[in-house]
Amino acid sequence: MHTTIAVIGAGAVGGYYGARLAQHGYPVHFLLRSDYDAVRDKGLSVESHAGDFHLPPDRLQVYNDPGQMPKVDLVLVTLKTTANDQFEPLIRPLLKDDTAILTLQNGLGNEDRLAELFGPNRILGGMAFVCINRAGPGVIRHTDHGIIRLGEFNGGPSDRASGIAEMFKASRVPCEVLADLRYGRWSKLIWNIPFNGLGAVLDLTTDRLLDNENGMRLLTAIMREVIAAAAAMGVCLPPDIIDIQIRHTRTMGAYRSSMQIDRQERRPLEVESILGEPLRQARRAGVNTPNLEMLYEMASLVDRGVRGK
Amino acid sequence: MHTTIAVIGAGAVGGYYGARLAQHGYPVHFLLRSDYDAVRDKGLSVESHAGDFHLPPDRLQVYNDPGQMPKVDLVLVTLKTTANDQFEPLIRPLLKDDTAILTLQNGLGNEDRLAELFGPNRILGGMAFVCINRAGPGVIRHTDHGIIRLGEFNGGPSDRASGIAEMFKASRVPCEVLADLRYGRWSKLIWNIPFNGLGAVLDLTTDRLLDNENGMRLLTAIMREVIAAAAAMGVCLPPDIIDIQIRHTRTMGAYRSSMQIDRQERRPLEVESILGEPLRQARRAGVNTPNLEMLYEMASLVDRGVRGK
Repeated sequence: MHTTIAVIGAGAVGGYYGARLAQHGYPVHFLLRSDYDAVRDKGLSVESHAGDFHLPPDRLQVYNDPGQMPKVDLVLVTLKTTANDQFEPLIRPLLKDDTAILTLQNGLGNEDRLAELFGPNRILGGMAFVCINRAGPGVIRHTDHGIIRLGEFNGGPSDRASGIAEMFKASRVPCEVLADLRYGRWSKLIWNIPFNGLGAVLDLTTDRLLDNENGMRLLTAIMREVIAAAAAMGVCLPPDIIDIQIRHTRTMGAYRSSMQIDRQERRPLEVESILGEPLRQARRAGVNTPNLEMLYEMASLVDRGVRGK
Repeated sequence: MHTTIAVIGAGAVGGYYGARLAQHGYPVHFLLRSDYDAVRDKGLSVESHAGDFHLPPDRLQVYNDPGQMPKVDLVLVTLKTTANDQFEPLIRPLLKDDTAILTLQNGLGNEDRLAELFGPNRILGGMAFVCINRAGPGVIRHTDHGIIRLGEFNGGPSDRASGIAEMFKASRVPCEVLADLRYGRWSKLIWNIPFNGLGAVLDLTTDRLLDNENGMRLLTAIMREVIAAAAAMGVCLPPDIIDIQIRHTRTMGAYRSSMQIDRQERRPLEVESILGEPLRQARRAGVNTPNLEMLYEMASLVDRGVRGK
C-alpha cells in the first residue's frame, strides 16, 4: 500500500513536490490557505522546464482545515518559517504513532522545534534545491533544478529516509539521503545567509552583489563567518566552498533571493531561521560573527518595515 | 576694510552662510552651478525660523565660472565632498598669497586634500550644525540651529580663526573656535557615521532606527567603534557621548539624514568622507571596526546603485 502524505503549507515548494507525488499516484492531501479556492475549483498547474502538467480537482484532495484531514504516514512541512508558531494546530491532527515529519523549510531551528513538539524520532529534515515560484493562484512555475537532499534529525541514514527518497525518485524528483543533516543545512546556509541577507537588506539581485568589489568583500566576509560557525558545530565545509558558491551564483544571472522577493512584496522575511538561529548558534559556540550580527539586525529592521511595526 | 569672501559650492549650506554674511555687509562672491540663473535673476531668499530675508540681485555677486571671480581673503568651501576632485580648478583662481580656506564640508579628509593642493597653512576646517535645505532655485529653508565650530588645520586657536568667528557672529551666525579641529570632526562623526550610514543603507529616518532594539543595537555598536577609532587618533570623546547623541536625536523626530536624502533623490552619496576616510584612519591605527567596515561596503553599493554603475 502507498504511503499517505500530507503537504502542510502548499505554496510553491509544497505545491510542486506534492503535485509530483500526486502525479505519480501517491495519495497526497494538501493543506492550503490563500490558494484553497483556486486549487479546489481548478486544480493545480505546474509549468515546468521538464514538461508542463495539470492535476484536475478530481485527482486532488485539498483542505483548508487540518481537522478535516486524515491521519497520514508522512507529513511534508513546507510552511514559511515565519509561520512556525502554527506547527501545533496544523500538524498534531495528522499524526499517528509512527507518522514521520519531513520539513523542507529554510534555515535552522525547524527540526528542533518540531522535535520539541512531536518527539525527535519522527523528524527528518531536507533541503530543496529548486528554482520555483508561484505564477498565480494554483499555478506553479518550475524553472530549474529540483533535487531534495534529506536526512534524519537524529542519527545517520535510515531505511525510513531511503524509503522517502525512493518515493521522490519514483515521482521524477531527484533525491539524496544525507549522512549528516547538519552538514546539509550549513552547506545551504553558506549561500542563504549572504545572498538572502544582503539581497533583502540592500534590495539587490545576486548579480549586483557579485559584479563589484564592495559586494564581493561583503559576501566573502559573511561566508567566512558562516564557515567558522559551522566548524564550531563540528561541520567542516570544504575549503573551496566560497569559490564554488560564487561561481555557481554567477551562472544564475539577476536572481532575486526569496528574502528579497518577500521584501519587495512586503511579506514577512524568514529572518529568524536564515539569520537569527545560525547567529545564536555561533554565539553559543563563542564564535565572533560581527558581519552576521549586523546583517541580522538590519534584516530585522527591514522585516519590521514590511510588517509595519 | 572688510574681508572679501568667496563661497564655493553655494548649495543650502553655502547659500545660507554666504547670505548671512552678505546681509551684514560683507562682500561675498558666490560660485553657483545649478541655481546660477535663478539667483542672478531673482536673488537669494532665506526662509528662516529666525526671520525671513531676501537679497536682491543688485546686492549679490554671483558667478558660474571661477575664472571670472576676484581673488579673495577667505574661501568658504561648501561643495559636496563628492565634488572634491574639483578643488584645483574651482579654488586656485581665487587665491592670493595669504588667502585662507575654510571648509565646512562633511566628514574627514577635506582639509588634508586642500592642504596637499594649496599648502597646509591656509587651511581651516569647520562643522556647521544647522537644519537647512534647498526649497527651490535660490530659495533656502532654515529650520533650526546654525552654529559653526571651526579651527585651524594645523595648530590650536589663532587670531585668524578668531577673526573669522567674529565675522560670523557679526552676521547672526553663532560661532566657536575649537582648540582641536580633530576633536570637532570626530564628535560630529559619531552622529554622522551611524545615522547617515544606516539611514542611507536602510532608507530609514532617525526615529525608525531609535524606536526598537535592532536599530539601537546597530547604532550603539557603530558608535562604540567610532569612539575606539577616535581614541586611537588621540581624540577622547566623553564617556556619555552615546547617550547624549541618542537623546538629542530623539528630539529630532523623523529626521532624514543628508545621505538618506541623497539616496532617495538618486544623487551621489558622501560615502568616502563620512565613512571611507574614518574607516581608513581606523585601519591604519590598527583598530578593528567590523561594523563600520560593513556599513562602508553597503553604502558603497547603494552609491553604485544611484550612480548606475
